[in-house]
Amino acid sequence: MSRRGWVNAEIICIGTELLLGHIVNTNASFIASRLAGAGIDHYYQTTVGDNHKRLEAAIKKGLQRSDIVITTGGLGPTVDDITTEVIARSAARKLSRGKPEGAKPLKNPFGTALGFILKVAPEKTIIALPGPPREMQPMVENYVIPYLKKTAKVAKIIKSRSIKLIGLPEASVNNKARDLLRLAGAVTVGIYARLGEVELKIMAKADGESRADIKIKKIETIIRKRLKPYIYGVDDETLEGAAAKLLLKRKKTLACAESCTGGLLSNLLTDIPGSSGFFLEGIICYSDESKVNELNVNKETIRKKGAVSAEAAKEMAVGIRLRAGSHIGVGITGIAGPSGATKTKPVGLVFIALALKNRVIVRQFNFSGLRKEVKSQAARAALNMLRCELL
Amino acid sequence: MSRRGWVNAEIICIGTELLLGHIVNTNASFIASRLAGAGIDHYYQTTVGDNHKRLEAAIKKGLQRSDIVITTGGLGPTVDDITTEVIARSAARKLSRGKPEGAKPLKNPFGTALGFILKVAPEKTIIALPGPPREMQPMVENYVIPYLKKTAKVAKIIKSRSIKLIGLPEASVNNKARDLLRLAGAVTVGIYARLGEVELKIMAKADGESRADIKIKKIETIIRKRLKPYIYGVDDETLEGAAAKLLLKRKKTLACAESCTGGLLSNLLTDIPGSSGFFLEGIICYSDESKVNELNVNKETIRKKGAVSAEAAKEMAVGIRLRAGSHIGVGITGIAGPSGATKTKPVGLVFIALALKNRVIVRQFNFSGLRKEVKSQAARAALNMLRCELL
Repeated sequence: MSRRGWVNAEIICIGTELLLGHIVNTNASFIASRLAGAGIDHYYQTTVGDNHKRLEAAIKKGLQRSDIVITTGGLGPTVDDITTEVIARSAARKLSRGKPEGAKPLKNPFGTALGFILKVAPEKTIIALPGPPREMQPMVENYVIPYLKKTAKVAKIIKSRSIKLIGLPEASVNNKARDLLRLAGAVTVGIYARLGEVELKIMAKADGESRADIKIKKIETIIRKRLKPYIYGVDDETLEGAAAKLLLKRKKTLACAESCTGGLLSNLLTDIPGSSGFFLEGIICYSDESKVNELNVNKETIRKKGAVSAEAAKEMAVGIRLRAGSHIGVGITGIAGPSGATKTKPVGLVFIALALKNRVIVRQFNFSGLRKEVKSQAARAALNMLRCELL
Repeated sequence: MSRRGWVNAEIICIGTELLLGHIVNTNASFIASRLAGAGIDHYYQTTVGDNHKRLEAAIKKGLQRSDIVITTGGLGPTVDDITTEVIARSAARKLSRGKPEGAKPLKNPFGTALGFILKVAPEKTIIALPGPPREMQPMVENYVIPYLKKTAKVAKIIKSRSIKLIGLPEASVNNKARDLLRLAGAVTVGIYARLGEVELKIMAKADGESRADIKIKKIETIIRKRLKPYIYGVDDETLEGAAAKLLLKRKKTLACAESCTGGLLSNLLTDIPGSSGFFLEGIICYSDESKVNELNVNKETIRKKGAVSAEAAKEMAVGIRLRAGSHIGVGITGIAGPSGATKTKPVGLVFIALALKNRVIVRQFNFSGLRKEVKSQAARAALNMLRCELL
C-alpha cells in the first residue's frame, strides 16, 4: 500500500511487438489517465515481451510493490499469448475453463478475449485486459474503473483541465503565468508547447470531483483574466471547432481560397459536424493561372509582387468572397517548402488575408519546419485570425 | 549480458506526466525499433515519475539485468529534473559541471539539454537522453545507435519491411498469406489491419543487413506475386505518395471536386513535395448551388438523383476536368455523418468518379465510422482509384 494506506496500481504491458517498437504503447497512458481521474496512485509502468520468465518476474514484483496490477495483452488464442497461464502460475492457481481459478471474467464487447479480475490476496488484485486499444478502452471505462472506485479505498482524485492558447510565444505565456507554474501542492499548472501553440494544464487533487472543480476554476479564472485573447478552447476543444462555433453563432458564411495550404483549412473546417451551416465553398488554386482565372487576381499583381505576397492574398480573399457570395473570404498564399524559396522569400513565408464586407485584413507569417508543419501552422493561423475577428 | 554474451539494452522513461497519462510514450517505441535494427537485444521498458527513490531503484535494477540503460527525460533545469543527479548517485559519481564525472556529453542539436554516456563499469553503460521526441530522436539516430554499433558486441540484427495494401479485406489477405503468417524462426510475418487497409510486416533476423535483406526479399516476392494489385507501397510510403508518383511518371495533371471529403483529398495530394507538377486545382463544393454553379452539374441530376449519387459524382468529375483543363478529374460526393442520412442513403455512402479523356469511371462505397473516418476512407479510396487507373 502506498502513502497513508491508499491504494496504488501499476501497469504491465505485454507484447514483443512493443519491444520491437512496431507499435506505440497508447494503453499505458490511457489507463494511467483513468487511474489519475479515479484517485488511484500510480508509480510504475513496465513493458515486457511474450516471455514466461520475465513476465512472471514482472507480475511478482508488481504484486510485491503495488496493490493492483493491471496487465494488457497476451490474452489471445495463439502460442505467444501467455498472460493467463503466467498469471495463474504467479498466483499459484490452477486454470479452470481458460481462466485462473477464482477469477471473475470481464466482458469484452469489441473482441473475443475475455479479461478477468483475480484477487490473489485480501489486498492484492490482478486485472488482465486485452491488448487492442479499441477492446481494452471500453472495458477500462465501463468495468475496471467503476470496480476500482467501488472496491478500492481511494484517496483524493486528480482532475485536470487544459487551457489551449495560440498567438503568444511560449516564453511570453511562461512570463505571464510564472507564479502559477511555480505552484506546489494540491493544485499545480504545467506548460506544454508545440509548433507555436501553448497548453496550460491545471491539475487539482481533492476529496471529490466538485472540490477538484472548484480548485481548478479558481486557477482557470486567473489564467483567463491574464491571457483571454489567446485562449481558444479547453480540453478536447479544437481551434477549428472554436472558429466554426463563432461562425454559426454570428450567422456568418465562409469561403476559402487556399494555395500553399492545399485544402487543409477547408478540411479542418469541414471536419466539424454542421459545417454546411457556414462553409459555402473552397478553392485550392495552386497555379498562378488558377488564381487569375478563378479568383480574378490581377495578372499585374502576380507579375509585380508575386503570387506569394500580401496583395495576392488580399485579392484571393476578396475574389473568393465575391464568387461564393459569402460574408467572409479567406485567402492564403505562401511557400510550404521544401522547394520554392527565392532570394527574398524563404520557406515558411505565408500571407493570410480575411475579406469582410467593408475591409480586408492581411497578415504576414514566417513559419519554420517541414512542409506539413508549415501547412498546419498556416491553416491554424488562418483559423485564429477568423476566431479573433469574430470575437 | 543476455544470451550467448550478446549485448542488451533497456529503456527507462522518466516523467510524472507519463504516469498521469498526459502524454503518450512514443520515446520507448522509437528507441526500441532502433535497437532492433541495430541488433541489440531489448527486454524491458520501465516508466517512472520524477521521484528520487523510485528512479534510483529502476536504474540500479536496470544496471543489474541489462548491459545498457537508456533513459529519456528529466535533463532540464527545473526542480523536477532529477535524472542527472540520480544517475550520479546510482553510479557513485560526483557531479562535475552539471554531469556525472567521467560522462561523455552528447550534443543536442534541437534543444539545450546535453545528453551523456556514462560507463559505470567495463560492461555497464548508462545513456541519458532528453525527453522531447524532436530532441531525442536525432540524437539516437546520429549518436547513440552509431556509438552502440561501434562499441557493443551485437548478435543478429532484426530488420523489418511493411507491405501496405488497400482494397482487399483483412480476412482475404489473411487467407492468401496464411502459410506466411504461420512462419516461425528467422523470418516471420505479422498482419495489422485498420480502417479497411492491411499491413503485412516481414521480420528477419540475420547476421548482418544484407543477409536480412535477402530473407526479406524472398518473402516479399511471394507476397507481391499473390497480392500485387492491392499493394501500394512499403514502409513509410503513403497512398498519396504512390498516386503522386504515378501522376508525375505518366505526366498527367489532376483536378479534384470534393463535397463530403471537404478538402482532405487535395490536402493529401498537396502534402507531397512537387505536387504542383500535377495538381492544377481543387474545389470544395459543399452546397448544391456550388456544384451547379462551379462544376456545371445539371440541376435536374440533383433534383432527380440527389447530390449524393453516381450521376452527380460523374458530372462533378467531368466538370472539374473541363474547368481546370486537366487530364484527370475526380469527383467525390457522399454522406460523412453524423447527420445527413436519408431513408435510402445511409451515413458512409460515397460515390467517387474519375473523369478521363474518353470515359468516366464511377464507384459506390459504403464506409462505416465517425465523420473523420468516413472522410479519410473516401479520400483514400479516391487515391486508390487513381493509383489503379494509372498503373
